Amino acid sequence: MLNGIYSNPTTIYFGKGMEFKIGEEVAKYSKNTLLHYGRNSFKEYGLYDKVTRSLKDNGIRYIELGGVKPNPGTDLVYRGIRLCREENLDFVVAVGGGSVIDSAKAISAGVLWPGDFYELFDGKTTPQKALKLGTILTIPGSGSESSTGAIITHEEKKLKRALDSPLIAPIFSILNPELTLTVSKYDTSCGVVDAISHVFERYFTNTPFVDCSDRICEALLKTLMKYALLVNDSPFNYDIRAEIMWACKLAHDNTISFGRKQDWATHRIGHEIGALYDVSHGATMAILFPAWMKYTYKANIPRFEQFANRIFDINPTSSAQVILSAIENLTMFLKAIGMPTTLRELGINDKTNFPVMAQKCVKQMPSGTIGNFTRLAPHDIVNILEIAY
Amino acid sequence: MLNGIYSNPTTIYFGKGMEFKIGEEVAKYSKNTLLHYGRNSFKEYGLYDKVTRSLKDNGIRYIELGGVKPNPGTDLVYRGIRLCREENLDFVVAVGGGSVIDSAKAISAGVLWPGDFYELFDGKTTPQKALKLGTILTIPGSGSESSTGAIITHEEKKLKRALDSPLIAPIFSILNPELTLTVSKYDTSCGVVDAISHVFERYFTNTPFVDCSDRICEALLKTLMKYALLVNDSPFNYDIRAEIMWACKLAHDNTISFGRKQDWATHRIGHEIGALYDVSHGATMAILFPAWMKYTYKANIPRFEQFANRIFDINPTSSAQVILSAIENLTMFLKAIGMPTTLRELGINDKTNFPVMAQKCVKQMPSGTIGNFTRLAPHDIVNILEIAY
Repeated sequence: MLNGIYSNPTTIYFGKGMEFKIGEEVAKYSKNTLLHYGRNSFKEYGLYDKVTRSLKDNGIRYIELGGVKPNPGTDLVYRGIRLCREENLDFVVAVGGGSVIDSAKAISAGVLWPGDFYELFDGKTTPQKALKLGTILTIPGSGSESSTGAIITHEEKKLKRALDSPLIAPIFSILNPELTLTVSKYDTSCGVVDAISHVFERYFTNTPFVDCSDRICEALLKTLMKYALLVNDSPFNYDIRAEIMWACKLAHDNTISFGRKQDWATHRIGHEIGALYDVSHGATMAILFPAWMKYTYKANIPRFEQFANRIFDINPTSSAQVILSAIENLTMFLKAIGMPTTLRELGINDKTNFPVMAQKCVKQMPSGTIGNFTRLAPHDIVNILEIAY
Repeated sequence: MLNGIYSNPTTIYFGKGMEFKIGEEVAKYSKNTLLHYGRNSFKEYGLYDKVTRSLKDNGIRYIELGGVKPNPGTDLVYRGIRLCREENLDFVVAVGGGSVIDSAKAISAGVLWPGDFYELFDGKTTPQKALKLGTILTIPGSGSESSTGAIITHEEKKLKRALDSPLIAPIFSILNPELTLTVSKYDTSCGVVDAISHVFERYFTNTPFVDCSDRICEALLKTLMKYALLVNDSPFNYDIRAEIMWACKLAHDNTISFGRKQDWATHRIGHEIGALYDVSHGATMAILFPAWMKYTYKANIPRFEQFANRIFDINPTSSAQVILSAIENLTMFLKAIGMPTTLRELGINDKTNFPVMAQKCVKQMPSGTIGNFTRLAPHDIVNILEIAY
């Protein structure tokens, strides 16, 4: 286990009706907040009324900024920053999925940053302060409700970059599985695959002696896979939605990160796809992870054997066969929950951008490679994209 | 899953050499601290010099209070409270195991409490404020390094009572597995069994749909049992000690508590034994849990079958046989790591106190029973003690 700092500062209010706490919680920190959200569904299902009433009841003035879309861009962030400054708002409430929360995080850091907020996403500088933010999560998967990260797409520069700072971890997040009952099958599956990919980025490591957190990773993978299949037939089952929502949160907080070198090559490749094509992040992960596994498993056969054995109950006879069979099982699971498993299914019908994306992946890396489980140079990335095609 | 609030506020500094951070961390909050510790071993192994140097280097004035013993009592708490008030100390550093940390927690709440601090342990009142505290953990098991609880024995009243408040959760804890290399086999095993018992109190629940946290409980049980056996042969192996230290922390923080009704009957019985006899808490748990299981498993056969199946790979054929075989396996494991498995082995050679302890167990309970998995009346408690005898 590597030396490290463990911190999970976001308080979670979990369960039925918890959205009513929003006003009371915000009032602990602020009387003037931005209310950031996405699509109109927030207004349709009555959540909007509950949230605004709770804010009003607690004497909180709020300014609305809606319209966040998947793969959130810079436009709304700039508008949010301007609004907070002009209206003296010192708190951000985000109601939505990972896109809304990431956009809110960018605003919260950007308001107190003297330059262009996207400088914070270039990996060259870090914020020194940020507005506090609280969230009501409506689509589980991203883990943004208690993570220190945010990802914003710069449409003009065709970049999709991340900011990681403890300052942008939400001070609290409200997780009511009832709010997720109406999430579509496809969006539900995309969210679960996003969470599974968060576990994979940690699980596939060469750090020795991480047995305890390996077991916790496996606990999360088993839960996510089981309930992703069950929710298809029972979308309105609270208990199933609760298991998914809770496992998605744990899949991206500090519990399983701890003490191990992580990988994140597959996410980097996925972000380059997301920067060029308007595709769901979860679906992209469903396509890329099996391809990455096929390309890299030889780097650490015992680890992939453990994966095959503990997740799919495949016992070691011939290593390669066991592992390929596990990857095949994973692909079958992804198909069963309605995920695409090739880039062509996502509408990416030619390979001409592969070398461009591969170069952009490594651009910020001093080593010229991405990943830790195996180090991937641009030609490796192209090979993985070919397998995923 | 039940509604609930998830909060894990203690920051953990984990790994080799981390004790050097103590001064820097305390300096964020205070310039005047109590330095609370236990036996002289703190001074023997060089840790004392490192800690005091780090405090001095960061301009922190400290007043020492050592001598905490297992099952910590009230005397040192009263002295600590007096010292903090007389010397204007506004922070408490605890260096030791659960006993030292619990004693420090009692001091931190007691200093700002107008009455007798033990009123806070009567379950009738809660503290409104407490001094901040930080810890350096030297014996894993209690989980006190990131829990909201403390247990103090009142020698005169022959009571062993708990205080539970978020105010006494350490602000930070330093966990360096190197510091645990010299912990004796017996103390190591007692600590592991304490942690295992923390998982059991959560795992044996009748709350349905707690699949994700069940899996995490099982991950912790498997880790703790595996490394408790391995550490016997390799006490100086850092990686083994690290797995134990990390799993013990997770076994008693908010991660696995979440969303389920917990039991805690076995701990209550154990505390009554601890109030009358000078025995290790972990050893007491090793004796009581198999007895409690034998007495209560019929209350929820499927849950005990899951335990048998997932922890000991015993597959269901005849329920009772499977479960009794799992309890037998647990007892064999406890013997293998040097734990006593009967009260007589602890030196408790007569049963005369059984009814007294049973009555004291339920004294504070409006229902006249303890436990949630099954509700235990005094005659049930006596029966369990008989099985444990």
